Amino acid sequence: MNPLKSIHSNCGVFGIFGHPDASVMTYYGLHALQHRGQEAAGIATSEFDPEKNRYRFNIHKDHGLVLSVFSDPKILTDVLKGESAIGHTRYSTTGSGDKRNNIQPLRVNFKGGHLALSHNGNFTNTGILRDRLEDEGTLFQTTTDSELALHLIARSREEHMVDKILDAFRQIEGAYSICILTDDKLFAVRDPHGVRPLAFGKLEESFVFASETCAFDIISADYIRDVEPGEVIMIDRSVLESGKEESFSIGQAEKFKHCIFEYIYFSRPDSMIFEEKVDKVRRKLGKSLAEESPAPQRISDDEKKVAVINVPDSSNTATLGYFNATVKTNRDVKHEIGLIRSHYVGRTFIQPGQDKRKMKVKTKFNTVKGVINNRKIVIIDDSIVRGTTSKLLVELINKAGPKEVHLKITSPPVVAPCYYGMDFPSREELIANQMKGDIDKIRDELGLTSLHYLSFLSLLKSVPYKHSRTDYCTACFSGNYPINIEGLEKMNKHQFDD
Amino acid sequence: MNPLKSIHSNCGVFGIFGHPDASVMTYYGLHALQHRGQEAAGIATSEFDPEKNRYRFNIHKDHGLVLSVFSDPKILTDVLKGESAIGHTRYSTTGSGDKRNNIQPLRVNFKGGHLALSHNGNFTNTGILRDRLEDEGTLFQTTTDSELALHLIARSREEHMVDKILDAFRQIEGAYSICILTDDKLFAVRDPHGVRPLAFGKLEESFVFASETCAFDIISADYIRDVEPGEVIMIDRSVLESGKEESFSIGQAEKFKHCIFEYIYFSRPDSMIFEEKVDKVRRKLGKSLAEESPAPQRISDDEKKVAVINVPDSSNTATLGYFNATVKTNRDVKHEIGLIRSHYVGRTFIQPGQDKRKMKVKTKFNTVKGVINNRKIVIIDDSIVRGTTSKLLVELINKAGPKEVHLKITSPPVVAPCYYGMDFPSREELIANQMKGDIDKIRDELGLTSLHYLSFLSLLKSVPYKHSRTDYCTACFSGNYPINIEGLEKMNKHQFDD
Amino acid sequence: MNPLKSIHSNCGVFGIFGHPDASVMTYYGLHALQHRGQEAAGIATSEFDPEKNRYRFNIHKDHGLVLSVFSDPKILTDVLKGESAIGHTRYSTTGSGDKRNNIQPLRVNFKGGHLALSHNGNFTNTGILRDRLEDEGTLFQTTTDSELALHLIARSREEHMVDKILDAFRQIEGAYSICILTDDKLFAVRDPHGVRPLAFGKLEESFVFASETCAFDIISADYIRDVEPGEVIMIDRSVLESGKEESFSIGQAEKFKHCIFEYIYFSRPDSMIFEEKVDKVRRKLGKSLAEESPAPQRISDDEKKVAVINVPDSSNTATLGYFNATVKTNRDVKHEIGLIRSHYVGRTFIQPGQDKRKMKVKTKFNTVKGVINNRKIVIIDDSIVRGTTSKLLVELINKAGPKEVHLKITSPPVVAPCYYGMDFPSREELIANQMKGDIDKIRDELGLTSLHYLSFLSLLKSVPYKHSRTDYCTACFSGNYPINIEGLEKMNKHQFDD
Amino acid sequence: MNPLKSIHSNCGVFGIFGHPDASVMTYYGLHALQHRGQEAAGIATSEFDPEKNRYRFNIHKDHGLVLSVFSDPKILTDVLKGESAIGHTRYSTTGSGDKRNNIQPLRVNFKGGHLALSHNGNFTNTGILRDRLEDEGTLFQTTTDSELALHLIARSREEHMVDKILDAFRQIEGAYSICILTDDKLFAVRDPHGVRPLAFGKLEESFVFASETCAFDIISADYIRDVEPGEVIMIDRSVLESGKEESFSIGQAEKFKHCIFEYIYFSRPDSMIFEEKVDKVRRKLGKSLAEESPAPQRISDDEKKVAVINVPDSSNTATLGYFNATVKTNRDVKHEIGLIRSHYVGRTFIQPGQDKRKMKVKTKFNTVKGVINNRKIVIIDDSIVRGTTSKLLVELINKAGPKEVHLKITSPPVVAPCYYGMDFPSREELIANQMKGDIDKIRDELGLTSLHYLSFLSLLKSVPYKHSRTDYCTACFSGNYPINIEGLEKMNKHQFDD
Repeated sequence: MNPLKSIHSNCGVFGIFGHPDASVMTYYGLHALQHRGQEAAGIATSEFDPEKNRYRFNIHKDHGLVLSVFSDPKILTDVLKGESAIGHTRYSTTGSGDKRNNIQPLRVNFKGGHLALSHNGNFTNTGILRDRLEDEGTLFQTTTDSELALHLIARSREEHMVDKILDAFRQIEGAYSICILTDDKLFAVRDPHGVRPLAFGKLEESFVFASETCAFDIISADYIRDVEPGEVIMIDRSVLESGKEESFSIGQAEKFKHCIFEYIYFSRPDSMIFEEKVDKVRRKLGKSLAEESPAPQRISDDEKKVAVINVPDSSNTATLGYFNATVKTNRDVKHEIGLIRSHYVGRTFIQPGQDKRKMKVKTKFNTVKGVINNRKIVIIDDSIVRGTTSKLLVELINKAGPKEVHLKITSPPVVAPCYYGMDFPSREELIANQMKGDIDKIRDELGLTSLHYLSFLSLLKSVPYKHSRTDYCTACFSGNYPINIEGLEKMNKHQFDD
Repeated sequence: MNPLKSIHSNCGVFGIFGHPDASVMTYYGLHALQHRGQEAAGIATSEFDPEKNRYRFNIHKDHGLVLSVFSDPKILTDVLKGESAIGHTRYSTTGSGDKRNNIQPLRVNFKGGHLALSHNGNFTNTGILRDRLEDEGTLFQTTTDSELALHLIARSREEHMVDKILDAFRQIEGAYSICILTDDKLFAVRDPHGVRPLAFGKLEESFVFASETCAFDIISADYIRDVEPGEVIMIDRSVLESGKEESFSIGQAEKFKHCIFEYIYFSRPDSMIFEEKVDKVRRKLGKSLAEESPAPQRISDDEKKVAVINVPDSSNTATLGYFNATVKTNRDVKHEIGLIRSHYVGRTFIQPGQDKRKMKVKTKFNTVKGVINNRKIVIIDDSIVRGTTSKLLVELINKAGPKEVHLKITSPPVVAPCYYGMDFPSREELIANQMKGDIDKIRDELGLTSLHYLSFLSLLKSVPYKHSRTDYCTACFSGNYPINIEGLEKMNKHQFDD
Repeated sequence: MNPLKSIHSNCGVFGIFGHPDASVMTYYGLHALQHRGQEAAGIATSEFDPEKNRYRFNIHKDHGLVLSVFSDPKILTDVLKGESAIGHTRYSTTGSGDKRNNIQPLRVNFKGGHLALSHNGNFTNTGILRDRLEDEGTLFQTTTDSELALHLIARSREEHMVDKILDAFRQIEGAYSICILTDDKLFAVRDPHGVRPLAFGKLEESFVFASETCAFDIISADYIRDVEPGEVIMIDRSVLESGKEESFSIGQAEKFKHCIFEYIYFSRPDSMIFEEKVDKVRRKLGKSLAEESPAPQRISDDEKKVAVINVPDSSNTATLGYFNATVKTNRDVKHEIGLIRSHYVGRTFIQPGQDKRKMKVKTKFNTVKGVINNRKIVIIDDSIVRGTTSKLLVELINKAGPKEVHLKITSPPVVAPCYYGMDFPSREELIANQMKGDIDKIRDELGLTSLHYLSFLSLLKSVPYKHSRTDYCTACFSGNYPINIEGLEKMNKHQFDD
Repeated sequence: MNPLKSIHSNCGVFGIFGHPDASVMTYYGLHALQHRGQEAAGIATSEFDPEKNRYRFNIHKDHGLVLSVFSDPKILTDVLKGESAIGHTRYSTTGSGDKRNNIQPLRVNFKGGHLALSHNGNFTNTGILRDRLEDEGTLFQTTTDSELALHLIARSREEHMVDKILDAFRQIEGAYSICILTDDKLFAVRDPHGVRPLAFGKLEESFVFASETCAFDIISADYIRDVEPGEVIMIDRSVLESGKEESFSIGQAEKFKHCIFEYIYFSRPDSMIFEEKVDKVRRKLGKSLAEESPAPQRISDDEKKVAVINVPDSSNTATLGYFNATVKTNRDVKHEIGLIRSHYVGRTFIQPGQDKRKMKVKTKFNTVKGVINNRKIVIIDDSIVRGTTSKLLVELINKAGPKEVHLKITSPPVVAPCYYGMDFPSREELIANQMKGDIDKIRDELGLTSLHYLSFLSLLKSVPYKHSRTDYCTACFSGNYPINIEGLEKMNKHQFDD
C-alpha cells in the first residue's frame, strides 16, 4: 500500500554514454526512477579536459528526492559536465541508509584512473569477500556491499578494464544490476540470475541503461533489449562509431531468477521489465484474483452495487483487471473511487503522543464517504507485509460505514525476508508469520469481512516466462533462496555515524 | 489537467477556536487544502499569556508547501502556541504572488488588539475603497485586496468587534470566504452571493471552519453546515460553553452565485461543498457527457475495445461516471489506465533551449503504450483553458500510436476571465477565444480525432441547486458577471519587489 | 567590553541618491556600520521603470550580519536595482528585536507613492501619538516606534512631500537620525537636540548620508558636514543638477544633547561624529583618566614594569592615551598586549550546565600568560554596565597570576537606562545601582585590587563642545533626561511573535 | 597582513581521550585553532555501544568555520557521542580544498576496526608511496596525501596498532603533526624534524593534544610538554589509569627543523609552541628590527612625533616590541593606532569590474586620518608574500596624507614556496622574485618612502633554540629544503570535482 508500505523498494540505476547533456538526461531518468528509492540520489560524470589532456570526475549526491538534490540548476550545467554519466536513486539495502558516505554513485581513484558505480541489488558472499580484502589491508570508506566491487576491480591483475570487471564479478555472488563509469567507458553488469531488471537503449547517437524503461520514455530514448543475465555490456567511443555495443559474459545461471515482486509492486506500470509490460502482468494478476476469489453479490436490487475500489496508485491497474474480469459475469459490481490520495508527499509533523502511523495514513488517504457508506466494498491491493498500514486503512474505510469490507491481495502471504535487494522487515515483523499463517486471524486482526491472498500457483500462472515457470525468485513467499546466502554478512561490522 | 493546468486554483482557508493543539490541527487542515494553493502557507495563533494578562499573536508563514513551511516541528509546538488559530494556503489572486508581505494570514495591531485574516476570493470594488482610504492617509503594507478589509475594520466607529466586521464587509463587494482571528474571538465571513465554499464544523469542544470538508476529515472533525452566504459566524469562550455559534448577517443576495468551477475542477472529490458531495456531482458530469457525446464503437470484434481513459487524478471520478453510463449500452468500451502520473512534484530543471512545457508534461505523465497502441481512445478531462497542456498531452498520447483520439470535456469552453478568485489567464490567452469559438479548429490545433465540450445546459442540469439553476456563477463560460466589477482595480498601483 | 557588553549598541542608517550602484554602495556602507547593530540588516531601493513609467520599490532585509543577509550577489545586482537607496543595521531598541516585521527599512505604500524609512534613535512621545492614531483607526504592522513616523507622514494634510515630513516630525519628540526614501527623493532628518550622529557627504555626483563617516571612507565618499540638529535635508534630481542640497528646519533645540556614549564606546575610532574625530576624543579620555588615576609604581627595579593593557578592541585607543600620558612621568609602566581576542564571532554552543557567560568570555578572549604573570596590571576599559562580563574577564586575568589588577574606566558609573536609542539593561541590573554606588563594593565584587571610574567633570572636560559643556546628553550617568520621556510607552502593547 | 595575506595558513589538529564531553572540548579547541584554517572543520568520535558491545565511529565535517559547521547543537550532543575525539580545521595544502571528500578528519574501516586521522603538514614522498599502493590495487577516495598514511597503517603486517603506526610513518617523509583515533586508543605523531608544533596536555583525567596551547587555555587544560620530534604518544584506558602516557619513537632527525614562520606569523601570540611563548618571540623580532632599522627622527619639535603603527592584529605584538626598543633612545616616536580592522569577516560581494583586492582591503581596514595625516609613519608588518595586499594597504595609508611611510618587516624576503604545509603562492608570484631581490624596486612598487626586511641573521638571533640556530626550517627565505622533496608529487593525478 504505497507510499506507506514497509517495503521501501530497492534502488534505481541509470547510465548514459556519448550525450552532450549526459547529466541532464540522467537527472530526468532518475526522476522517472524515483519510486525505486526516495532516500538519496546522485550523479557522477566523466569530463575530458582538453587543456590538461586528462579526465576529471564530477559528482553530486545527497539525501533527498532527485528534484531537491539537484534543485540548483548550476549543479547540472556547471558542475556535472561531461558526455557520460551514471546516476542512482537509493533506498538503503545494505549499509545504514542515513550515512552520507553510502550514497551512490560511489566514486574512487585507482591506478587505472577514476571509477564510479551505481548498484541495485545485494551481494550475498560479502562476509567472505570482506574478510579476504581486510586481510590484505584494505580500507573501507563505506558500509555498503557495493564498495567491495570497486576493491575487487582495482585489485584485479588483468590488464584491460573489461577483464578487471569480469574478474571482479566472477568472485561476487548475489543480485546486481550495475552501471560502472570509467574515464572513457561505461559498463552495465547484470548478475547471472537476472534478479533485478536492467534495460538497454539508445538516445540519438548515445547509449543508455536504466532499471526500468520508464526512464527511457521521459528522455525519448528507444528501448533495445534487456542486459542479459550474466552479461557485461561495454560502451566506449568506438562503440559510438560502430553503433554496436560490445558484449561479454560473467556466465549465465542455469535458471533465471527474476524478482517476481517487481511485477507485483515495485516497477512502474508504464515500464517494460523482464521483456514484458508491467501493466499487462498486473492486469493479469487482477484477473487471476477475480477467478480465484469472486466479488460478493447483492441480496436484492435495492442494495447498492458492490464497490470494487483500488488503493491509489499502487493497485490501480490490478483493480481494473479484477473488475473487468468480474463484471463479465457479475453485474452487481461497480468500479468506484473510494479512496483519495494526497499528492503532497513528505514528512508530516506528528505530535508526541499521537499515533504516528495513523496520522501518516490520514495525511495520505481520505475516504469518499458517499461511495463507501452502507455498501459492500471489495478492496484490491498488491501485498500485505507488516499489516500495520493495511489495518489503519481498513479502519479508515470502516469509519465511512460500509456494509462489508473484502480485501483481496494480488500476491501470496509474505513470509520471508529478501536478501537480494528489497528492504523487507524481519521475519518476526511479517504479519503472516505473527499470525502463524492463519488467514482468518489476519482477517480479524485487520478488521475485515473477508481476506483473500492470490495463491502461489495463480501467481506463477499470471507472469510470463521464457524457460519455465521457475524463472522467478519467489523467496519472500516461500523461503526458498535460489542464490546461496551463507556468505552473507552485514557489511557494517564497524559502524559509522555521520 | 492538473497539475499543469493554467488555472492555478484559488486559496484555502482554515480556522479553529478552543483547541489545545490549535496550530497542529490547522497544519493538518491546510495540508488537506494544499490543492487550493501551493505557493505559500501560513498560520497565526492567539495565545493568552496569564503572567502578563494579555494576548500574544504568533505567526509563521513562508513560500512553499505546507509540509515544507512548517518542516521544523518547533514552529508548531513552541512558536505557534495558543488555543485558536487561522491558516491559509495561497495561490496569488491579487497582489503579485512572490511578495513575502502578501502571504496570508495578514496580521496587524489596532486599537482593539490584534487582528489576523485569511481570505479566499477577490474583492471587486477595490479601486473605490482604496482611493477613499488613501485620501484619509492610510498606509498600505501589502499589494493585496485583503488588506482593505483590515483597514475598514480598524476604522469602523462601531464599538463591538462583530459590528466593526459587519460594518466593514457591508462596504465590500466581491467574492470572499474569510476567517478572522482576534485576541479572543474567531469569525467566519462569507459574501452575500456565496461564491466560494466555507464549511463549519466541530472537533470535540472546539469549532472549526474550512474551505472544504476534506480538511475536517483529516482531523476527524464533524461537518455541521455551511457558513451561509452573507453570514458572519462568531465563536468565543461563551460559544464554547453554550455549544451554539452566534450568527449575524451582512445581508444575503437575492440569488446565490456559487462558483460552478469548484465542482468541475477545484474541490477535492472527497469534499462536500455547497451542501453536496463533489464526487457525486463529478460522476454526474461524466454521465451527462456520455449522454451528450457517446464513445465510438468498434467496426468489428477483431478490433480492440475502445479505451476510456482518465487524466490522473483530475478526471478520475468524471471518467468513471462517463464509463459507467456508457457501458450500459455500449459493450465496446473498456475503462483503461493509459496515463501514469509521477507522484514526485516540484520544480523540474529545464535546460535553456528545451521546450519548457513539454518537459513539464513528460516529467509528470507517461503513457502506457500497450493500452493505447492501435486503439481508439476516449480521454475524459475537466476543462481546457489555454490549450497548451492539452496539446502536449495529446501529442504524448499520439506518440503511443492510437487509432483515434477523442477528447471529451466535462465543461463548456472557457471564454472569460474570473474576477472572483480564480487565477485564469487573460481573455486573449484562452484557446476558445483564440480559435474564435470554432471547436473544429481547436480539435485540429490539439491534434484530435474529435473534441466535445459539455453543453452549458447539460452542465447546469448536472449540478444540484437550492433555489434555481441560476444559483451558480458561470461567468467563465458566459462572460456574464453576476457581481459588479466596475470598481475593480489592481491593488498594486505602487509596486513592491522583495 | 565589546563584544560581550550588555549595551548592544543602537542602529546604523545609510542613504544614497543618484548613484548607478546605489545598493552596492549601501551594502558597503552598512558593512562599515555593522558595529551599530548585528541583529538584522536591510536595504530598500527606488527604481524607475521607464516601460511602465512608474517607480518600483525593491527591498531585502533579514536577521543576520550584512555580509550574510546579502550573501547572494543576485540580491544586490538583480533585485535591488535603482539609483537611490537607504539601508539599516539594527539592534532592537523598541519593538522586540526578533520579529521579522520590525526589521528596517520599513516600507509602505500611501497616496503619494512609496515610502521607506531607516531610523536610529527612539521616539519618546509614542504613547500619545499611538493613542491618537489608534483612535483614528490606524493599523500597525510592526511594534516599532518608527512606524509612527510613516503614519504621520501619510496623514499629513500638507501637499508637498517635504512639508508632510516637517509636519510629521514636528509632532514627534525624542532622538532620531533618519533616512527616508520616496519614489524620487531622499530625505535625512535629525532631531532638534542632535542626540544621534548623522553625516552628510558626496560620492562623485551622488549624495550620501550615514550614521558615521567610516561608512563614507569605505566607498571613498567625501564628508561635507553633519546634518544639523533639527534639520531636514532633501535630495532629488534637481539637487543633483545644482550640486546643492535643499535644507529645511523642524526647529532646533536651545541646547544640543549629543549622546556622550557615542564618544566613549559606540562609534568607531576612525569615524568623525559631532564634528570631531572619535579617536582623538578617546585618547583624550585616556589622558584625563591618567591624570585622575595614575598607574601604580614599582617597589624596586627588580620588579617587572607595570603592564598597561587594553581590552581589544574597544579600549585600544583610550589605552594608548592613558599610557602615553602616564609614561611621560612614570617610567615604570609598559604598554603590553595581555588579552588576545578571537576574530571568529558568532554564537557558540554552550553545554547545558556550563556557565554560559564564562564560556562566552573564553571563546572571545585569552590571556597572554607571560605578560600578566607576577606583575602589576592596569586594565583600561570604557565602561561597566552589568558588571558580569568585567567580572569574568578579571577572573580570566587573575588565573594568569598577576600581582595586582587595577581597572580604570574612561567613564563614570552607569546608573540610569537610556530612552534615546541605546539598549541598556534595566536600572536594577546595573552594577552601580546594585552596589548602591559603593565603588569599593564593586571593586571587591569584580575581584580587583583597585577600581577607578573617570569623574563626571573629567568626562565633560575631555569632549569638545560648540556651545557649552552641556551640549551632551549624560542621562545614563546622571539620570537627568534632557528630552521629555513622560509620553513614552512601549510600542508593543499588543505583542507579535514570528 | 592577515586576513588578506596570500599565505592561507596550514591546518589545526586536536585530540582528546577519556572525557565525557570529548566532542564539546574538541569543538572549543578547534575554535581556538580557527586561525590555522578557515576553509573546513570536522570532528570524529569513538563511542562504545555497550548493548552491541562494539565501537561506533561518529563524524561531522563540512566547509565553513567551526562555529558554523557545528551550529546545530544536536550534532555535538546527540551525534558526536563518545569519550574520545579528534578534530581538524583546514586550509587545503594538498588536495584541492573545495572537495568535500578531502575535509578531515579522514575516517575509514579496516581489519582492526575504525580509524580516523587529522593531519597538519605535508608528506614529501607521496609520488613514490602512491605508485606503490596503486600497483597493489589500492583505491583512493580523496586527493590528499593524508590518505596514504591510512593505507600504510591498514596494510602493515604488524600485529599491534602502535607497531602498525610506527611501520607506516617510518615509510613517510615530510612534515606532519597528526592525531589518530582508533576504537580504543588515541595516538599523536610528530615527524622526526618537528616541523609543525604539537602540544600535549591534561584536562582533569583526560589527555589532550593540540597544534597550539591556546586550544588548551580555552578548555582550561594544562600544558605538559610538546610531542617530541619523531615521537608517537599513545593514550588508552590503561594510560588513563596510570596517568602516564606511553611513548614510542619513529626515529628523531639529527637536527630539528621547526617552521620559523610559525613564530613570525602563524601561531597565536597567546600560544606556546616549540617550548617558547609566541608573544615573547614576536616582541623579540620587533626589538631586533628596531636595532637593525631605527625609526626616523623629527626635523624639529614643531613636527608631529613619528607614528609607529601596527597592522591589526597580525603585527600587534611585534609593533610593541619595536616601539619599546625604539622609545628608549628616540623620544620622537609615538605608538599610534592608525589602522582600524573590521571584525565582521566573511566573503564580501565584489561587483564585476571592481578591483577585487582593493575592495577586500577596504572592507577590512580603514585608516585613522587624524593619526596619519601630515606625519611620518612607521608600519610594522610580519612579512610580504605576493605584495599585492601590502601595496593596497600602503595606498590606503597614502590617501590619508602622511609625510613619509616606512614599512618594516619582521622577516626576510620570501623567495621560495613551502612544501611542508604552508600554502604559499608559486615562486613566480612572490614579489621578491618578481623584483629579482631588488629591495628598492619593491619599495617603489609598494609606494613607500623606505622598506626594510629583517636580516636573516637577526631573524635567527631572535628565536630560541635547543641545539643550534639551525634548529629551524627557513626554506621560504633561503630555498634550502631540509627534508627531501624529490618524491613529492601532486596527489590529485585523477581529479575529482564535487
